[in-house]
Amino acid sequence: MTKRILLAAAAALALPLPALAQTHDVVALRDAALKDDLAWEITEGLTTEVGQRLAATEAEARARAWAVKKLTALGFQNVHIETYKMPVWVRGAESAEVLGTSSQKLTIAALGNSGSTGPKGVEAEVAFFPTLADLQAAPAQAVKGKIVFVSHAMTPTQDGSQYGVFGGARRQGPALAASKGAAAILIRSIGTDHHRNPHTGVTNWPDGTKPIAAAALSLPDSEQLERLLKRGPVRLKLLVTPQFKGEAESGNVIADVPGSDPQAGIVLVGGHLDSWDLGTGAIDDASGLGITTAAAKRILDAGQPRRTIRVVWFGAEEVGGFGGEAYAKAHAGERHVFASESDFGADRVWKFETNLPDSAKPIADRLATALGPLGISRGHGIAGGGTDVGPVLRTGVAGIDLDQSGLRYFDYHHTPDDTLDKIDPEQLRQNVAAWTALLAIVANAPEDIGKVQPAAH
Amino acid sequence: MTKRILLAAAAALALPLPALAQTHDVVALRDAALKDDLAWEITEGLTTEVGQRLAATEAEARARAWAVKKLTALGFQNVHIETYKMPVWVRGAESAEVLGTSSQKLTIAALGNSGSTGPKGVEAEVAFFPTLADLQAAPAQAVKGKIVFVSHAMTPTQDGSQYGVFGGARRQGPALAASKGAAAILIRSIGTDHHRNPHTGVTNWPDGTKPIAAAALSLPDSEQLERLLKRGPVRLKLLVTPQFKGEAESGNVIADVPGSDPQAGIVLVGGHLDSWDLGTGAIDDASGLGITTAAAKRILDAGQPRRTIRVVWFGAEEVGGFGGEAYAKAHAGERHVFASESDFGADRVWKFETNLPDSAKPIADRLATALGPLGISRGHGIAGGGTDVGPVLRTGVAGIDLDQSGLRYFDYHHTPDDTLDKIDPEQLRQNVAAWTALLAIVANAPEDIGKVQPAAH
Repeated sequence: MTKRILLAAAAALALPLPALAQTHDVVALRDAALKDDLAWEITEGLTTEVGQRLAATEAEARARAWAVKKLTALGFQNVHIETYKMPVWVRGAESAEVLGTSSQKLTIAALGNSGSTGPKGVEAEVAFFPTLADLQAAPAQAVKGKIVFVSHAMTPTQDGSQYGVFGGARRQGPALAASKGAAAILIRSIGTDHHRNPHTGVTNWPDGTKPIAAAALSLPDSEQLERLLKRGPVRLKLLVTPQFKGEAESGNVIADVPGSDPQAGIVLVGGHLDSWDLGTGAIDDASGLGITTAAAKRILDAGQPRRTIRVVWFGAEEVGGFGGEAYAKAHAGERHVFASESDFGADRVWKFETNLPDSAKPIADRLATALGPLGISRGHGIAGGGTDVGPVLRTGVAGIDLDQSGLRYFDYHHTPDDTLDKIDPEQLRQNVAAWTALLAIVANAPEDIGKVQPAAH
Repeated sequence: MTKRILLAAAAALALPLPALAQTHDVVALRDAALKDDLAWEITEGLTTEVGQRLAATEAEARARAWAVKKLTALGFQNVHIETYKMPVWVRGAESAEVLGTSSQKLTIAALGNSGSTGPKGVEAEVAFFPTLADLQAAPAQAVKGKIVFVSHAMTPTQDGSQYGVFGGARRQGPALAASKGAAAILIRSIGTDHHRNPHTGVTNWPDGTKPIAAAALSLPDSEQLERLLKRGPVRLKLLVTPQFKGEAESGNVIADVPGSDPQAGIVLVGGHLDSWDLGTGAIDDASGLGITTAAAKRILDAGQPRRTIRVVWFGAEEVGGFGGEAYAKAHAGERHVFASESDFGADRVWKFETNLPDSAKPIADRLATALGPLGISRGHGIAGGGTDVGPVLRTGVAGIDLDQSGLRYFDYHHTPDDTLDKIDPEQLRQNVAAWTALLAIVANAPEDIGKVQPAAH
């Protein structure tokens, strides 16, 4: 490890002179962004004036109208909506009750794409599995007709990596339970807080699997159910009545900062406009829109960049990445040379990772120099983007990830608690400063940014 | 202040020799209590096996049965239930929705004793008052037909004293709004957290006031509504349908550690068995039962004390202190010489205050010596007890308050988040140690404990 760190330091000292000269403007732009108010204004405005923005609903349509008005007023060019059709799922009634001598209610929230118990609900005994692997290993007769309950041991991490590992209980657990004949499934919320606010999120049904009711218990309720199960068998009454409503319209909102050199390709950035229905989508992802848009606005105001910067407020990310797929398909004919998104809240950026072609490696060195004073160091992984820019990245487009601290992200993620008060204005500004430096460097880079091998994400 | 502190130090050094000798047993009992598991066992058992325990409901009756079984098994004497009748209020449906271009739901919880909007709800414009004083000053025409919204600026304090000040919005706000013709009232939750879990709590209607619908917004929702009001008038649809269900049975559970000297009087301690209906009542007040009962059990096991220690698990505290009143009335013929309760969660005790007759002042000095190593200092106020032992204290009975830190108490108080995970086992044990020392000193004190002037609370 020590040798790698020393080599990185030597590389930073070996910057070519033109790069050092360019860094000068970047520093001024970066430091001015530490006083940014626009990211807050966008985050506050969208979450207050629109509120929740579930994909392909009337609320998401209102959010698109809000976006067009805002981006136009800010002076972006080519501001427009691109629509697409997608299936819509909407929440219904939901309740859970322990039956018998310890009769009590438990707090739940249906997972996105959950099936329904029907209006009468279901009553059944609980079959408990401490982990998803335990459910996988269980014979069907231990599951059939039962209400499956899957727990896990997710902890907060700075890189948020446990979401991938423990999130399987949400993503695959319901289909697995359904395949073994379960009446319904409850999971311990994929989260790290102890508030009575369950974490929703999408689950998936392979073709041919009939959806069963699938809901998350808040962590306090999940632990309560585990304590009751230690005392003996538990019967639950569960009512979950969401609906699949067929196809409806969603859309992406697009805004450009036109570059001076059309041959240099497009720099694509953004976040997602839709949110889950429980909170107002402040950390997920109004703040990502605020951060990337405020940074692009700073480049817009600083004078025309070499490359066009395109800001996209993607629709329908939460429910399956429909906006990202639609954008990549509609714009497959354009030359994108770079794509990056902000979709991990607004706490401090602490690390960045890149996926750049050899010809463009000096960009990463200049970025390391510019981000160091913000407390951001270069990581050793390969940038992989996220759901929204993923489809573009997978065509071999280069990218950089600015990684926010995830230590409290999964306290609020997909819960009613994802609200404006969770955004720290000072940390939000540090994000804008980092993104402004990134855009100033990438959009103006004299190097050609060619194709790369996409990260295996 | 400096002079007072020096005088207190001198007083501590001036302890009479018998007092110092007695302190020896107290130290051993106190330190053994730092390994206590019984307080946790009671808190965990009651909150898990019974759950919420709203006064005069089936759940509170189950809790009394649980209590009798537990206290009998622990070896207490004279374990029994004393019932009384009281009016019952139960929660119904509740929802709030912003109408118009910023259409969105707000999270609310009806206040105890709230009136009903009827099943169709009410729609009206919001009349905003930043403080209760602003509502008081408002002319009736600014309120009539409106949904009143009262905010406040409560902050966390170690002594919890802002609950008294800012809690007026909940206690008096609804009656005041009703007297001015309001259609309904919403208040910013009397709390200090930013989670989407509103704080309920009782409100009061003077004779002749017709109850209106009265509910609390969570703090994030309250701030959202304030932001919307800054942009212009807001219309809300409010549905709140609780019911007054007439008279039903509640009760106190009583358990004694009989003393050797019937003439020395009864030492009364305890907490309350009922809880609000939203959480499982862990900090309010299963932990208070656990702490006082575990301490009394340690005295029971250490050999017969001079005075009878009576542990009461009071019923129906939250909704108006019916249990405390019923106990005082039923036991008015007995000689109580001391009363104290634990009803402020289970975080560390940091301060104690006394109200003792001159003849019993050495008790306070011995207590200061015993509690100092636990990080507990003597305060300068006068002990006033709480809702449960208040009716006994008001007859001139002496008391001591062991004050827990309230810095996070009002994050959870009266919310769905009042659950077992909010109890820190180590801080709970510190409470048991402090209470064990208190009971060892008071129950065995050789001094007569006579009447006092009750604190003006």
